[in-house]
Amino acid sequence: MAASERNYVIGVDIGGQTSKLGVVDARGNVLAQSVIRTDTHDDVDLYIKDLAVAIRKLADQVEGLAKVRGIGMGVPNGNYYRGTIEFAPNLPWKGVIKLAELLENEIGLPVALTNDANAAAVGEMTYGAARGMKDFIMITLGTGVGSGIVVGGNVVYGHDGFAGELGHTIQVRKNGRLCGCGRTGCLEAYTSAVGVARTAREILETTDRETSLRDLPWDQITSKDVADAAQAGDEVAIEVFNFTGHMLGAALADFVAFSSPEAIVLFGGLTKAGDLLKKPVEEGLNNSLLPLWKDKVKVVFSQLKESDAAILGASALAWEL
Amino acid sequence: MAASERNYVIGVDIGGQTSKLGVVDARGNVLAQSVIRTDTHDDVDLYIKDLAVAIRKLADQVEGLAKVRGIGMGVPNGNYYRGTIEFAPNLPWKGVIKLAELLENEIGLPVALTNDANAAAVGEMTYGAARGMKDFIMITLGTGVGSGIVVGGNVVYGHDGFAGELGHTIQVRKNGRLCGCGRTGCLEAYTSAVGVARTAREILETTDRETSLRDLPWDQITSKDVADAAQAGDEVAIEVFNFTGHMLGAALADFVAFSSPEAIVLFGGLTKAGDLLKKPVEEGLNNSLLPLWKDKVKVVFSQLKESDAAILGASALAWEL
Repeated sequence: MAASERNYVIGVDIGGQTSKLGVVDARGNVLAQSVIRTDTHDDVDLYIKDLAVAIRKLADQVEGLAKVRGIGMGVPNGNYYRGTIEFAPNLPWKGVIKLAELLENEIGLPVALTNDANAAAVGEMTYGAARGMKDFIMITLGTGVGSGIVVGGNVVYGHDGFAGELGHTIQVRKNGRLCGCGRTGCLEAYTSAVGVARTAREILETTDRETSLRDLPWDQITSKDVADAAQAGDEVAIEVFNFTGHMLGAALADFVAFSSPEAIVLFGGLTKAGDLLKKPVEEGLNNSLLPLWKDKVKVVFSQLKESDAAILGASALAWEL
Repeated sequence: MAASERNYVIGVDIGGQTSKLGVVDARGNVLAQSVIRTDTHDDVDLYIKDLAVAIRKLADQVEGLAKVRGIGMGVPNGNYYRGTIEFAPNLPWKGVIKLAELLENEIGLPVALTNDANAAAVGEMTYGAARGMKDFIMITLGTGVGSGIVVGGNVVYGHDGFAGELGHTIQVRKNGRLCGCGRTGCLEAYTSAVGVARTAREILETTDRETSLRDLPWDQITSKDVADAAQAGDEVAIEVFNFTGHMLGAALADFVAFSSPEAIVLFGGLTKAGDLLKKPVEEGLNNSLLPLWKDKVKVVFSQLKESDAAILGASALAWEL
């Protein structure tokens, strides 16, 4: 069969609890998808066998594996060069796991993997807001802050495969908040969904300013609560987004000085806040940029449907195989 | 004549006062060099004619232009993509100048140009400390702070050709010193030769600590004076280098999070301070890195002879033509 007849790819997004997979065409349509459990598979060999069964079932909906070009995976702590998962804290398999090789041997198709944020960047370049762009930075704003950097049309993997940890740049707030990584002042500690809730709680705790956020249980405030309050005109909540956006924008200015991207693509739960987030990000960015770049770097939201984005991102890797 | 017999390249380093040029072999030997004035050529067309004459003379020493593969130029505000100089404040030609095209038309050989720091990075990769490396960051510590970033074996030029302005990242010192670019807190305002002298003067001005630097005229202290005093054991001077190195190292940690380089290559006048500079840079870096990279990123000095480095860097561009 000619390679040109392999018109589909399969994307697998491995999370701590479940693994989502889907078969995707060249235009970014997810034609079929399914889910298997990750957390119940302490033995990675059994996980691979179950994953292979699920992949074959999916492929049957597009006339079988013979129509599939390859498999892309987005995984925590994924190393693109080695096809490995390395010391992923939220997965059942410890140490270094040769996941790509295991799956290739089981299923007989080429497999590529990378971490979630890099996969998201490739997805955006293949099907989304970064189509046609060769230089952009994807920032994922979820529970944590991740990044996927594209330079000259290629993801920046770096010497060891772990490049693009912009959520763990620490110059943005010297001696700042403690981060999950054990250091202080990481961008992630401020501009993630968790960071937004933390900023709101800090204001509630250290001031007696009036805000509808005080009606909520203090320790259960989420970034969505803050966004809802801000949309309803709550001044404290609006200030939380201004603070967050300005800080993210200022940090982005330094990233622009590094790779001079055409655009910054924002992705993840926090982007649901829309202009509440985007406007202060643009302000913070343009206030901190060298004159050379002022008002020239686009800030755009991801254009991938959120429910499909992880599968699309992973699948996009497979077109390059 | 077969292309394989074109065994030489010519490098041209254009400065505000003079332009240095040399003919270079594949092993990085500068076989002959010469100089023409830049500042006396208000008319760029006349400059190009004089430059072409100088290039032909140099080429005659290796059996003529037929043996030369191409010409590489390192120029202030050089744009690699467009082959232009754009609004260079220290050159006699204003606006956007199509320098590469002008020289190609005059001399009939391919010409590439980029800014000085990118040229230095290519030179280091071709002939120097970064031979065999595909991912590294070159930081030039002279009057200003420049950078040339290599990812996957290619210089990062970015969307517009102006990437790699790490001297103008500003997160490192919020609301810090005024920089020549008009903003505050740029890395360049602290870790350049000028920044080192400024730090020393600040200590003299704001404390009454004893130091041999007080024997010098206050407003004429240079980074070399500070290095000499530090070498002789002067505690204030040593502290200036510790401050400078720690700050540079902390800034580098964020750059590592971006592109995960194998090494940081330090280049320029300030590196003459040797371990006085290198040790605090390594400390600052390793104190700020994610655990993943701690003690794994090399900090090395340029291996190009300083008098040849600018020509070598420029010439290295031409091997890629």
